Amino acid sequence: MEREKALELVEPHLTEHRYKHTLGVMHTAIALAKKYGVDQKKAEIAAIFHDYAKFRDKNEMRDLVKEKLHWPSLLHYGDELLHAPCGAYYVKSEVGICDQEILDAIAYHTTGKPEMTDLEKVVFLADYIEPGRQFKGVDEVRKIAETDLDEAIIQSLENTITFLMKRRQLIFPDTLATYNDFILKRKRRSDC
Amino acid sequence: MEREKALELVEPHLTEHRYKHTLGVMHTAIALAKKYGVDQKKAEIAAIFHDYAKFRDKNEMRDLVKEKLHWPSLLHYGDELLHAPCGAYYVKSEVGICDQEILDAIAYHTTGKPEMTDLEKVVFLADYIEPGRQFKGVDEVRKIAETDLDEAIIQSLENTITFLMKRRQLIFPDTLATYNDFILKRKRRSDC
Repeated sequence: MEREKALELVEPHLTEHRYKHTLGVMHTAIALAKKYGVDQKKAEIAAIFHDYAKFRDKNEMRDLVKEKLHWPSLLHYGDELLHAPCGAYYVKSEVGICDQEILDAIAYHTTGKPEMTDLEKVVFLADYIEPGRQFKGVDEVRKIAETDLDEAIIQSLENTITFLMKRRQLIFPDTLATYNDFILKRKRRSDC
Repeated sequence: MEREKALELVEPHLTEHRYKHTLGVMHTAIALAKKYGVDQKKAEIAAIFHDYAKFRDKNEMRDLVKEKLHWPSLLHYGDELLHAPCGAYYVKSEVGICDQEILDAIAYHTTGKPEMTDLEKVVFLADYIEPGRQFKGVDEVRKIAETDLDEAIIQSLENTITFLMKRRQLIFPDTLATYNDFILKRKRRSDC
């Protein structure tokens, strides 16, 4: 799908602010894909559609998570987690994108998951560091992202978990599992 | 069991430093038990024996975790986690303590677990704040422990998870599950 067509399809689903964020994620994902040898076209499309379900009705998404995605445990950790896996579902059923690598990059862009593909990493990280993001620690992650994709994600996960704990919010277990998976893989590489 | 007898049984298993720590945990656990209406005698005995297996052979404990405790996932998160559940096992089989509440307080004093009993909380927290402990954040937890047992444990879990992430170490999933359990219970209470 051409970029213009994809943007045209996603724009009505987003606020102006979120559309601008999406453009930032798109440009960042393409740059990261180029740097780390990931399919730039897939990164572009996944980035454009990553927040497709951001403003969907929460009850509709809760039902979808229960009945179609069969992922009831997701429901216990806050509504903010719904839009990523639901987005992947809607992008397939409504936009007709069937590339599973793109759909997974959309589905896991908020929580991460163990065994992330490089495309998933690129979209996850682009969402965290796109130029419109302004929060404590983001510049450090941007700098790390210039040279080390995995370490940038580890640092972003550390920031997110720390942020949630300070606010006494629940932490999705798969986000910790993602952190542990990166640490274990790095340990295994350094042990070789 | 009398305090003197218990201390006599545990002393040969500990270094001088660790024995002094154990005395600190004992006094702190008794004080916390008194403050929060927990059985002081059980808190005393659990505290005295909490590090019983601290210096056991690691291979012996790994075998025990696999073959007797049937908890193989524990083995992936560092040897430091072995001594608590193995300690509970040895305290039962070698010292003859059969009170399951005391054994569980020993078994979960390092990682915590969801649905902690008040006795487990007291021993877990006493181990963290006993007077010999000197690390960043411990004074804050000591202060919170004067008025709020659960919040003190939440803060100690936050400190521990933050510390491990900064050092790029693995985090035991049940430690996060413990944090989430406390947060969820507090949320439910405040929603009532």
